[in-house]
Order: sequence, then structure tokens, then C-alpha cells
Amino acid sequence: MTESRVDPALLAGNRKRLAGYQAQHFVWQVESGVATLTLNRPERKNPLTFDSYAELRDLFHQLKWAEDVHAVVLVGAGGNFCSGGDVHEIIGPLIQLKAPELLMFTRMTGELVKAMRACPQPIVAAVDGVCAGAGAIMAMASDLRLGTARSKTAFLFNRVGLAGCDMGACAMLPRIVGQGRASDLLYTGRSLGGEEGERWGWFNRLCEPAALLAEAQALAKQIADGPTFANGITKTMLHQEWAMTIEQAIEAEAQAQALCMLTEDFGRAYRAFVAKQKPTFEGN
Amino acid sequence: MTESRVDPALLAGNRKRLAGYQAQHFVWQVESGVATLTLNRPERKNPLTFDSYAELRDLFHQLKWAEDVHAVVLVGAGGNFCSGGDVHEIIGPLIQLKAPELLMFTRMTGELVKAMRACPQPIVAAVDGVCAGAGAIMAMASDLRLGTARSKTAFLFNRVGLAGCDMGACAMLPRIVGQGRASDLLYTGRSLGGEEGERWGWFNRLCEPAALLAEAQALAKQIADGPTFANGITKTMLHQEWAMTIEQAIEAEAQAQALCMLTEDFGRAYRAFVAKQKPTFEGN
Amino acid sequence: MTESRVDPALLAGNRKRLAGYQAQHFVWQVESGVATLTLNRPERKNPLTFDSYAELRDLFHQLKWAEDVHAVVLVGAGGNFCSGGDVHEIIGPLIQLKAPELLMFTRMTGELVKAMRACPQPIVAAVDGVCAGAGAIMAMASDLRLGTARSKTAFLFNRVGLAGCDMGACAMLPRIVGQGRASDLLYTGRSLGGEEGERWGWFNRLCEPAALLAEAQALAKQIADGPTFANGITKTMLHQEWAMTIEQAIEAEAQAQALCMLTEDFGRAYRAFVAKQKPTFEGN
Repeated sequence: MTESRVDPALLAGNRKRLAGYQAQHFVWQVESGVATLTLNRPERKNPLTFDSYAELRDLFHQLKWAEDVHAVVLVGAGGNFCSGGDVHEIIGPLIQLKAPELLMFTRMTGELVKAMRACPQPIVAAVDGVCAGAGAIMAMASDLRLGTARSKTAFLFNRVGLAGCDMGACAMLPRIVGQGRASDLLYTGRSLGGEEGERWGWFNRLCEPAALLAEAQALAKQIADGPTFANGITKTMLHQEWAMTIEQAIEAEAQAQALCMLTEDFGRAYRAFVAKQKPTFEGN
Repeated sequence: MTESRVDPALLAGNRKRLAGYQAQHFVWQVESGVATLTLNRPERKNPLTFDSYAELRDLFHQLKWAEDVHAVVLVGAGGNFCSGGDVHEIIGPLIQLKAPELLMFTRMTGELVKAMRACPQPIVAAVDGVCAGAGAIMAMASDLRLGTARSKTAFLFNRVGLAGCDMGACAMLPRIVGQGRASDLLYTGRSLGGEEGERWGWFNRLCEPAALLAEAQALAKQIADGPTFANGITKTMLHQEWAMTIEQAIEAEAQAQALCMLTEDFGRAYRAFVAKQKPTFEGN
Repeated sequence: MTESRVDPALLAGNRKRLAGYQAQHFVWQVESGVATLTLNRPERKNPLTFDSYAELRDLFHQLKWAEDVHAVVLVGAGGNFCSGGDVHEIIGPLIQLKAPELLMFTRMTGELVKAMRACPQPIVAAVDGVCAGAGAIMAMASDLRLGTARSKTAFLFNRVGLAGCDMGACAMLPRIVGQGRASDLLYTGRSLGGEEGERWGWFNRLCEPAALLAEAQALAKQIADGPTFANGITKTMLHQEWAMTIEQAIEAEAQAQALCMLTEDFGRAYRAFVAKQKPTFEGN
């Protein structure tokens, strides 16, 4: 009897390589398993448009099945992260719309956050300069955030007449910085500075602006060199256990970790330890 | 065909103006949309009684429909916030009661917190001096907290032989300061100082005692000048998404934000931006 | 008619005294209501084995009914807390196992955390030196954590090829230090230093290494001298309300606190206050 191996891409029913993806509305580069996604309209501080939202959503959705990307760096060009939804290209049109179309838009933006949380690759946001509105949301929806002292993060929704409940902010921001500090940012729309952000746990650490991208890529590379299947399970469980009881979470982790113990990477780490070597993980 | 406009007060079935409300057990003043509620028994550090509890609960309940209050400042007279349930007027009687009456009391105090969380107005607690027991709970149930360096916040329930689970403390305090620090405060009943409180995110910031009330009122005024319908939705969603999954929260926010995009305030902000002016919000 | 008093141990169907318990795989000492549990294989930095896991799980399970233990100190011998699952005695065997056995193991380790959360005694972890893997989990599953500046806490699961979702870490760690900082620790497996840990709320405070155990015991003694029935209810509710809505939490606390108001300790505290004395609690 011949052993046959199923092509994993068939199992997922989707493309498996994203290194060659040609982005239309931002820059996408993959190197050594780390994808760098650069928002690239620096003259406007990298705002989002309907088209770039849709492409971002679709790309993060496809990352679920990508075999060649193990961590993502999210960055903006020209010293700013992202100024959020473009005032002229998004907000102007929105004020013309009726309820069903508006819900279609808010659900589309929400799908971007869902896709960022659902892909197995940890996402490192590299935040310099302006990080506002939907830009702040994309940083929030990332797993890790490196910032600069001069960065300004603003959940400025109430400044444009809207509620702070955008794309999951009222759920996710309080779990990152605490309920009281999240309330401050969402009710006032004020800018959070870099040092304050690090003190609150919004930023994992601060970097010099010139070193920010390289440090974010190095952190992403370190993660991508780890046991990537297990890292994806960590991300899934951080998401999955959000609203579970402690008992449910412990049972869910017992199952998820047992699955990881069946990977070769677990054995590779053990054998490397015994041999006093550094393990080489393969993500299976 | 004549257009008819329904009186919003009819929709809610309740009074719509609270500016003229004559408080019996505290001081209530409304100016420019900001209500200042002053606990006013300074000689006893502003303790609560059965009567003041009931009036507070009822007033916060009515705020749900108030059209003339857009933010609330909660403060104590005479350099202290609130010393909690009066030992003689509350604790003494309680130790005589049986289970059904005790549950009636604990449910009534819990209703105060529910009403504070359910009204759409963001609440700014201005905390100086003693902030203990039910006083600490009222600060916790506020949206924002300004403190002073000399303030002392104590969840001192276990000092009076009770559990730390009072009026929602075991649910809400951990989300403000983290599970470990909440455990410290609830198991020891110790006082949290002002600087420590700011460092933990309990206080949004510290003020000089003499400036505390004015700063709290200025912050409340800034919020009241914003898009008040949207602010109320922010508060609702911060509450509503407490125990949702991330997916549920994102869908809930898509609906809530689409509703806010249908308000005139959203258009006002857009037009002001295009005209390079400051928007004037009207809360509709 | 003669009044008869039921032996509480009968109600619980279990042993009621743990002071004399003879531990096989660690040291167990009870003094004045405070149990000190010392992991005691200092030459290997106090790793866990299958046997010690099982004994820990069973002992914390029995604490549910213990009448003579009111707080627990968890410490390691020889300047380290715990190095986690022994590489040779646990990880080696695990890589031989199949799915059902692995799930049996991960469920067993999860049961230890469940038992630590389910017993009514607050647990104070005294963390010096290495606190890694399952050791970090045991510190996390404690109620309070005292550390030292030189301590190194590492959720190093991904270093050994596994996911960060071990024994509840993806649920509990984010609620202690925030979602972003928990992600950092779980994706990188890096060591958290003592000062950083205190700043994040991982440690309640830092102590000098030589004073650590005594300070942990003093804190545990202070808690054990309090209203121990009420303290146990605090612990239960901190656990129970984890995934409740705010309304559900407030109702649950109304019931739980009404129960505590029926204890004698509540009256003892009131009478001591009136007499200007320090209350003596009896835990009933």
C-alpha cells in the first residue's frame, strides 16, 4: 500500500504562498517568513480608502492558509503609521449613505479586524508619528506594538462625531490598557504619547524612529523562527478564550496544548536541549 | 401632509429635564450640560445612608432620559470623597436583619452601580481624601477618575468582616487595575495612595486638591461639548461588550457605529473639517 | 428538644485538618492558619514531576474543606521558585505519547490550576530566582505574588516547541498584565525581570531575597487573621464573575455579600468598631 500525502493547500482550499503577492494599495514584501506590510501614501500620512480596506481585509484573510509567512510587520511610510479613514475618500461619501449601506461599511471594516485576529501569524505594529482612527484600530488589532516617543495614538472617533465603539475598540482596548484608561482615550479622543503608551502597556517598548522598522522586523523574525504552528495556536487561544470561564479556558488549553505536543517541533526542542543545542523549528 | 415630530420624552415615558432637580440627600447642580453631584455631609466624610443610596439610585436611573445633562461630576464636600456606608445608620441596622432583607439591601446598592453604568452620561469622579467602601465602589463605577496625591482609596470590606464582592467589585476592579492588584486591594482592604493609583490606571490623572473639582468639571464640560449621542453609545458599548466574544463585539460595534453615522453630528464634524472650523455638536 | 450541631466535615464529606499532612514531594508546614508549601529540589531549581503535579493537585483539592488553613504561601527552596516541568522526567516521556495520553497529562496539569483557584484560601506566591514554565503558571494561578528584583519569570513554552496556552495562561495572564504584555511574554518566551514585573502588576511588590519568605508569610498571616469565610467568598467571586456580564456579576455579589452579612464576623467587626477595638474574626 502506497502512502499518499495530501497537499495541505487542498485541505484549506486556498492559495498557500503569499510571498509573490502584488499589492495594489500598499507595499507587501516577504523575507525569511516575515511579511512587511507598508501603508504607503506618506503625503497624506497613509490614510485608508474603501479599496485599501478591502484589500487589507482580503489579504489578512488569505494569511490563514499561507505557508510562507510566519509573522507580519505592519508599518507606515514616511514617519507616520496611519491617519485612519481618509476624510475626503471615506467620510465624505459616508455621510450620504443610508442605514443598510453604512452597516455594510462598518461590517467591512470590522472584517479587517476579525481577519487580523484570525490569521495565525503574530502581527507586530511599528508605530511612529500619527496613529489615528482606523490606524489606531489596526495597531490595537495587532498582537504586539513597538512605538516611538514621538508617536501619537488617537482613538479620535468622537472628534468626528462618532462613538468610540469602532471595529472592536470598546472590547479590545480595555483589555490592553485597562478600563479606565480606555475610557479616557475613547471619551476624549486625545492623543496618547509614546512614553505614556509604554507605561500603560499599549506599546511593548519604544524604539528610536530610525531603528523602529528594523527592530520590529527583528522581533517578527525571532517569532517566525519559533515553532510557528504552536505560535498560531497561541494566537488562536488568546482570541478564543476571550469570553470563556476559567474552567472552559483550562479545558480548551488542555486540548490545544496536547495537539502541540504531537508536533515534531516539540520533539526537536527536547532533542536540542538534551544535545545542548539551539532547536531548529519547522512549524510542524 | 404635515410632518409631525414626536416629543422624545414621550418615547421614553419619563421626565426630560433634571437641571431643576431638588436633591434631598446631596447637592445637585447643572450648568452647561454638566451636572455636579456633591456628597455633602463633610463632618462625617460624606457617608451614605439608606436614604441617600435610594436617592442616588433613582437619580442615576432618571439620567437615562435626561436631555439637559451630558456629563456628571461626582465629588465629596470638605476634602473627602465618601467614607462609604454609615457605620451607625447602615451597618448597625444590617446586623439585625435576616437573609431576605439583607438581599434586598445588597440588591439596592447594586442597583446604584447598574444605574451609573446604564445612564448615557460619562461620569467623572473627583476623588480627594477618604474614598472608602461604598465610596470606592462609586468611584469604580464612574467612567473616569481624577484623584489627588493625598487621596486614599480603600475597598475595606474585609475589614468590616465582609467579602470584597460588593456591588460588582470582583468583576469591575480587575478590569481597571488588573487581577493581581485588585486581589491585593480586596484581600487586604488596604488604602491605595494617589500616586500608586495613577500608576495602576485607577486614576486617569492626579490634580492639586484645590484644582480638583474645576479640572473634573472642565473634563466633563469637554465631553459634554462633544457628540453626546455618540458618547452615550460609547458608554453603552463599553458596558455591553464586557462579556462578549471578539466577533460578537465587532458585530455589535458595526451596528452601533452605523447608527451614529446617521446622526447629524457626523455630518457637522465633516463639514467643519472641510471648512477648517471647529465642529459644534448638538447630540443628534 | 436538644439542639444538634452537624460536624461540618460530614457536610463536605472530607478530611478537615491539613496541618499534619505529610507531603511526599514537597515540604508542607502549617502555622497559625498559614500553610507554607515549599518546592524542595533546589539542586534542579525545584522542577515538577508527574508525581509532584499529582500531589499538588490533590492537596489543593483537599484545601477546599480544610478548617485549619486560611492562607497558603507557595515558595521554592534555594533561591529559585520553580523551573517548571522537569525536562528529563516529564518532557522526555511526553514526546513518546499519543493524543489520548497527552490530553490526560494536560488535563491533569490544568486540574492543578483549577484546584488552586477553587480552594477558598488566598495563595501568596513568593517568587525568587527562576520562575519558568509550569512554575510561572503556578505563580500566575496564585492570588498574590511577591517577587525579588533578581527573579526571572518566563512563560517559555514556545522555547520548547509548544504553545503559550498552557494551564489557562492565555486566559489569565492577559487579565493580570494586559493583553499586549501577555502577548509579548507568550510569543517570545522571554524572561520578565522583577522591576518590570512589579511595574506591570505581575508582582504586588518586590522584597529583598532574604526577607521574601517572611514577608509572604506575614501577608498570608494578615489575610488568615481576617474574616476567612468572607475571604473565601471574595476568592470564589473573583473566579466566578470572570466571564459574567456586569449585571450578572452585580446580582451574584448581592447574593454572596448578603450571605456574608449573616456571619458573626460581620457583627464582630461592628461591635469592635463601636467599642473602638480591633475585631477578632473567627471565620463564621
